[in-house]
Amino acid sequence: MTLSTPGPTLGVVGGGQLGRMLGEAAAPLGVELVVTDPTPDPPAAPVVRDALVGEFDDEGTFRELAERADVLTYEIELADPDVLERVAEETGTPVHPDPETLRTIQDKLVQKRRLSEAGVPVPEFRQVDSADDLREACEELGYPAMLKAREGGYDGRGNVPVESPEDVEGAFAAIDGPAMVEEMVDFERELAVMGCRGADGERDTFPVTETIHREEILRESVSPPRVDDGEAGEAVLDHARDVVLDVLDAMDGRGVFGVELFETPDGEILLNEIAPRPHNSGHWTIEGCHTSQFEQHVRAVMGMALGTTERRAPTVSANVLGDVEERRPATLSGEESVLATPRAHLHWYGKHDVYELRKMGHVTLVGGDDGDDESDTDDLLGEVRALRDELTFQQ
Amino acid sequence: MTLSTPGPTLGVVGGGQLGRMLGEAAAPLGVELVVTDPTPDPPAAPVVRDALVGEFDDEGTFRELAERADVLTYEIELADPDVLERVAEETGTPVHPDPETLRTIQDKLVQKRRLSEAGVPVPEFRQVDSADDLREACEELGYPAMLKAREGGYDGRGNVPVESPEDVEGAFAAIDGPAMVEEMVDFERELAVMGCRGADGERDTFPVTETIHREEILRESVSPPRVDDGEAGEAVLDHARDVVLDVLDAMDGRGVFGVELFETPDGEILLNEIAPRPHNSGHWTIEGCHTSQFEQHVRAVMGMALGTTERRAPTVSANVLGDVEERRPATLSGEESVLATPRAHLHWYGKHDVYELRKMGHVTLVGGDDGDDESDTDDLLGEVRALRDELTFQQ
Repeated sequence: MTLSTPGPTLGVVGGGQLGRMLGEAAAPLGVELVVTDPTPDPPAAPVVRDALVGEFDDEGTFRELAERADVLTYEIELADPDVLERVAEETGTPVHPDPETLRTIQDKLVQKRRLSEAGVPVPEFRQVDSADDLREACEELGYPAMLKAREGGYDGRGNVPVESPEDVEGAFAAIDGPAMVEEMVDFERELAVMGCRGADGERDTFPVTETIHREEILRESVSPPRVDDGEAGEAVLDHARDVVLDVLDAMDGRGVFGVELFETPDGEILLNEIAPRPHNSGHWTIEGCHTSQFEQHVRAVMGMALGTTERRAPTVSANVLGDVEERRPATLSGEESVLATPRAHLHWYGKHDVYELRKMGHVTLVGGDDGDDESDTDDLLGEVRALRDELTFQQ
Repeated sequence: MTLSTPGPTLGVVGGGQLGRMLGEAAAPLGVELVVTDPTPDPPAAPVVRDALVGEFDDEGTFRELAERADVLTYEIELADPDVLERVAEETGTPVHPDPETLRTIQDKLVQKRRLSEAGVPVPEFRQVDSADDLREACEELGYPAMLKAREGGYDGRGNVPVESPEDVEGAFAAIDGPAMVEEMVDFERELAVMGCRGADGERDTFPVTETIHREEILRESVSPPRVDDGEAGEAVLDHARDVVLDVLDAMDGRGVFGVELFETPDGEILLNEIAPRPHNSGHWTIEGCHTSQFEQHVRAVMGMALGTTERRAPTVSANVLGDVEERRPATLSGEESVLATPRAHLHWYGKHDVYELRKMGHVTLVGGDDGDDESDTDDLLGEVRALRDELTFQQ
């Protein structure tokens, strides 16, 4: 391998905040980004070579991207795998991770089947194509259960809890399409692990993270997780890591994968969902690890050696979400406290408009470099929440 | 203060590697960069909103920059302070640091006089306008002495050692213009400190760094420096920091300042040179500190609170310099070892051409998070040199 200028170019389908953070991470490695996104001036635009405008299945822009790039990747699951595959074949520009992996992950039912067959522990699930299917499945799995659209859902959209038989008709009508239903997992906490696959089968995982959701949207990440002190807690983290390595083995292609898990009260791990890309639950790695998930993704898809996934210090992140009811131009206030707090880091995503619960940025707080004392993370979490809660889009 | 999109814009005169690293650091803060540089597609281009093309005294491009920006700064001393001042006045866009500071620093004689008058310890120096001046000064200061062009020199260019009376005519002829001569300092080691001045007079310093030059070009930075273990070493570092605070007090305007120092065998500190911008001796802060010198410069000039300058771990950097005799398109090989070494970080500057001793990139290596054990830095320095020495532009 050699480096020259202009550097090797990575074509990214999607130019949102993940594309932006990929751009920030790619430049030191000498890798340039071109992105394509339906929105003009998307978040990535100020830190990439060029931002093309096109839908996530637009063959013309995908082809332009492929012709300008050495490698293609995607930062959003809405990218069309068929178009990606065709363009890759015709232009000779490889796509990582493999579009087949994207296809598998896009369909939550296919995803769960594939992982279950590979021996990955998953919550019990059933295919649902009608209200009758749903009723029958819930009788087997028990109430409450979670109905999920097979495709297109994210940040809780496309998920509908089914509390009792009376909810069945309404829940199915809300999805109104191919779906699956899962037993509702009674979890002790949610965990997430960023996994990565490099060239030549190299694979690794970042340290396990605790994730805290509300309304099914990630609010905070805590690393290390606040598991039991001692052997029992260690066993949970080891187990989570093993599950993620099995997930990586079941998926094709290089890149970073976000793997969301449930930890049950008896210390078991169940797979929740996978994303074939950098993930919100890994944003803490920018300051918390020697290699960030974004740098790691660039390394993996470009065929460079993976970086160390070692954690530098206990680290927490909190999402900055839209707190306004009506969509409007975004103006954030209250960031002075974040900027004035030592070891606090502001990440603004550069979105023009804010609406309710839209991910607009995040705040990361790094703990002392005195090892992995997980008793600290509770305090860190309180501090980062207080900083985040001072931020508002209301005028 | 508030944040919106498009974000506040920083206009930067110069689009070299410092502009590139400013761009990488500015995006998380929501700050966009526009740069101007005489070279089309300069290093900063892939990570900034726009790169204008114009000389460092081109009033037209300075004006365009000022009209697009909320604040102006410069990442190269060649920026013309008169044009900057005029454009700032006419457009109302402020320049930081103050152009008057740039004017003072551009002229090494004026710089030294100002600092000396402010009580900053400097090597003995004399103004030199003729070979006779030089001979007279050297008789007072003793041989060897260092003749320096008052303006335009950097990376050793414009500096000529005067070993003996026989060298006087040749040395002055080599400069052939306004000059100064300094006593040659018999230093124990060279140190550097990045100082910063924020809004409302806030000032701070990054941890002291040892710098290693060869042919007057920085080769490696080592932080913490390999000073004596114990109180004597601590006293040297405290003294260096105090000198830099005095330097900051003597300069106008906000921003980061690179301050190069000599440590004499008896533990005294003498000021060598100042740069009114991020500096090569501070590149280690990207991974070595919670706030990098680049983020700090953006914060300072944009009027945000300064970040903590705390060091995260012992850290060393080594410059990747051109190792070819003739200028040619740059192709670097040997970077696999850097990428495969845990805690090693590659920084490629994105320059199209390489020539002898041109700064093309750097490699940073971070030590264990086990405090500031300076005995480690010697090993780290050996490791980073070995990694750097595998890199070559020769084919």
